[in-house]
Amino acid sequence: MPMISHKGERMPASPIRKLTPFADKAKQDGKKVYHLNIGQPDIETPAGMLNAIKGIDFKVWAYTPSEGTLTYREKLTTYYNKLGYNIAADDILVTTGGSEAITIAMMTCLDSGDEVIIPEPFYANYNGFASQSDIVVKPILSHIENGFALPPISEFEKLITPKTKAIFICSPNNPTGYLYSKEELEALKELVLKYDLYLFSDEAYREFCYDGQTFTSPMHLEGLEQNVIVLDTVSKRYSACGARLGCLITKNKAVWTAALKFAQARLSPGMVEQIAGTAAVDTPDAYFEAVNKEYTNRRNTIVNALNKMEGVYCPNPGGAFYVVAKLPIDNADKFCQWMLERFSYHNQTVMMAPATGFYSTEGAGLNEVRMAYVLNIDDIKNAMICLEEALKVYPGRI
Amino acid sequence: MPMISHKGERMPASPIRKLTPFADKAKQDGKKVYHLNIGQPDIETPAGMLNAIKGIDFKVWAYTPSEGTLTYREKLTTYYNKLGYNIAADDILVTTGGSEAITIAMMTCLDSGDEVIIPEPFYANYNGFASQSDIVVKPILSHIENGFALPPISEFEKLITPKTKAIFICSPNNPTGYLYSKEELEALKELVLKYDLYLFSDEAYREFCYDGQTFTSPMHLEGLEQNVIVLDTVSKRYSACGARLGCLITKNKAVWTAALKFAQARLSPGMVEQIAGTAAVDTPDAYFEAVNKEYTNRRNTIVNALNKMEGVYCPNPGGAFYVVAKLPIDNADKFCQWMLERFSYHNQTVMMAPATGFYSTEGAGLNEVRMAYVLNIDDIKNAMICLEEALKVYPGRI
Repeated sequence: MPMISHKGERMPASPIRKLTPFADKAKQDGKKVYHLNIGQPDIETPAGMLNAIKGIDFKVWAYTPSEGTLTYREKLTTYYNKLGYNIAADDILVTTGGSEAITIAMMTCLDSGDEVIIPEPFYANYNGFASQSDIVVKPILSHIENGFALPPISEFEKLITPKTKAIFICSPNNPTGYLYSKEELEALKELVLKYDLYLFSDEAYREFCYDGQTFTSPMHLEGLEQNVIVLDTVSKRYSACGARLGCLITKNKAVWTAALKFAQARLSPGMVEQIAGTAAVDTPDAYFEAVNKEYTNRRNTIVNALNKMEGVYCPNPGGAFYVVAKLPIDNADKFCQWMLERFSYHNQTVMMAPATGFYSTEGAGLNEVRMAYVLNIDDIKNAMICLEEALKVYPGRI
Repeated sequence: MPMISHKGERMPASPIRKLTPFADKAKQDGKKVYHLNIGQPDIETPAGMLNAIKGIDFKVWAYTPSEGTLTYREKLTTYYNKLGYNIAADDILVTTGGSEAITIAMMTCLDSGDEVIIPEPFYANYNGFASQSDIVVKPILSHIENGFALPPISEFEKLITPKTKAIFICSPNNPTGYLYSKEELEALKELVLKYDLYLFSDEAYREFCYDGQTFTSPMHLEGLEQNVIVLDTVSKRYSACGARLGCLITKNKAVWTAALKFAQARLSPGMVEQIAGTAAVDTPDAYFEAVNKEYTNRRNTIVNALNKMEGVYCPNPGGAFYVVAKLPIDNADKFCQWMLERFSYHNQTVMMAPATGFYSTEGAGLNEVRMAYVLNIDDIKNAMICLEEALKVYPGRI
């Protein structure tokens, strides 16, 4: 029997997936499980987008151009230029989800053995994408005490080697919800220019900024045009995770042209998705206002509840729909499994993501969990009651 | 300005894409261009599949499981088991097109520097997928004189090294249309078992077998269960190339489990596509019968017309919707460009794919072109008249 590749062996499994059998078992046993573990919003997809799917009128479900249809890319420019990105359709490469935008950007800019610096905790699948291409992730620790702000530039500088090709940021951040300020990005800009690096900007959560704070993208900074690669997706913006529609944006023509070759190999992004994505750009502002109001309420609910629990600390993040909280526990992996396997309160329990999965540094995040506030307020309140009760009786409480 | 990766530089551009500007120019100049260059069928997608898209009734366009929905995978087993594959839903991993099935299979089974043997000419994007993962393609020449039959096993054996991990076949073949016989597959089986290799089987054209010939898959061979990985897509079967829906099938659990980790990193295949794909399995036999009758007529038309031209030879392939023909020309790349740039007959011309793009061996296929018979009979007849006239006046005729 032939062996699988070393790459296949090394490829990290989804950290949340490990808990799935325990969640399934809990449900089989009749427990209600509050899912705060994944970023699948319960918010409805905009009606205009769903109607565009229902309204398709083609007879042949055909390939589209590898870079995406001109119709969709032109429509996207109206969306991005309203944000001040000042881009043309030819700066956009349509991808199969934000995931593909990331893999294509990595392959285009980094070779096997090259290094990318990523503030941690970070979205766990970055490890998987890097692993696929034999790229080395150099994590740089951010801290819950200051809400996971950008680590000092001097810390970045310590990690830079001749192999360093890129810095990878995500703001508003998954998993921390932290929103980088313009000043933080300006500081990064100096570093990126000094060492001639790429700046990958995962902007999946751009729409989700709270308390009147505004989103700043590296695309807003002058002089970074040849360095910035934006990685985007419609998944969270329109609650359309199953669309698998994203894009890569860069004004660097050499990057765009090389990225297109990877896109050509896989032929085409989805046709129905691009039709729906074109309609989505016309989603009325009221949709986003309602969604942001709802998320702000949810965030306030979860952050307040957490900080009232003894021994718990949760920063109040400026964006996305996640929080990372510090709990008085020995081990987040054990605790999250215990919650599903052993604990119930009025026959209910909570599924959370251990933060360890979001750190690359061994031992980091051991007493932290990530919660996605993708449930309605009542469910969040009930989940928080469950968690508070659980912490009272968890045998590994410290 | 940071540099793109060596991988990005090495990544092959689409060979057909080089001709696109010349085709665009020809059209701007008012010429009618018959597109025999790409495998985008003109056949309508089954109504049941399109109706499934129009009939979606979800409110949240959500992620599906990374391996695909159980509903779709179970439905697929009825399709495959009718073919005698004897598989379960858990042997299937749903992918974003056949392209992703290939990249995941390669990453799961081969490391950087490992070798895969592929009879050439072969689908050009295999080079791209291998290049992405730093996998080495070892081509093995098949010949137009015997219709591109499987090369002798002794020729394969000469290429085997300790780095050889897999043999990759495609039957019915793109670009040659050749359909491997059961005997040819049995011979491959012995080789695969002797050297403990994987056998990748790209079966995109399974439905398109002519003259009463039946399709044999390596899945039909006993004793190969741990070695075979089927790479499939709905693109050609249902004329649904823009769906980007495929799958990887293997009974080798270690492979399936490792492949799932790559699938988890990219989260999910498309949700609407899986709904449409589920409906597609119920496409009535009459659809395929009509399609096969049409393609048989087209193949007969194109093969007969080609073989009547002086100095032209075209085998009569058993499947798919491509032919590779040998023309009395100096250089297929030059000729195909000349057809678009310089030639017209009654203001018409033909776009074809130079076969050089389907060979890895330098200089092979220089006087061969691939034609996809994806146009109606009248257009094919007109295209062949054009080609015949062109060959009379082409300055590089030999």
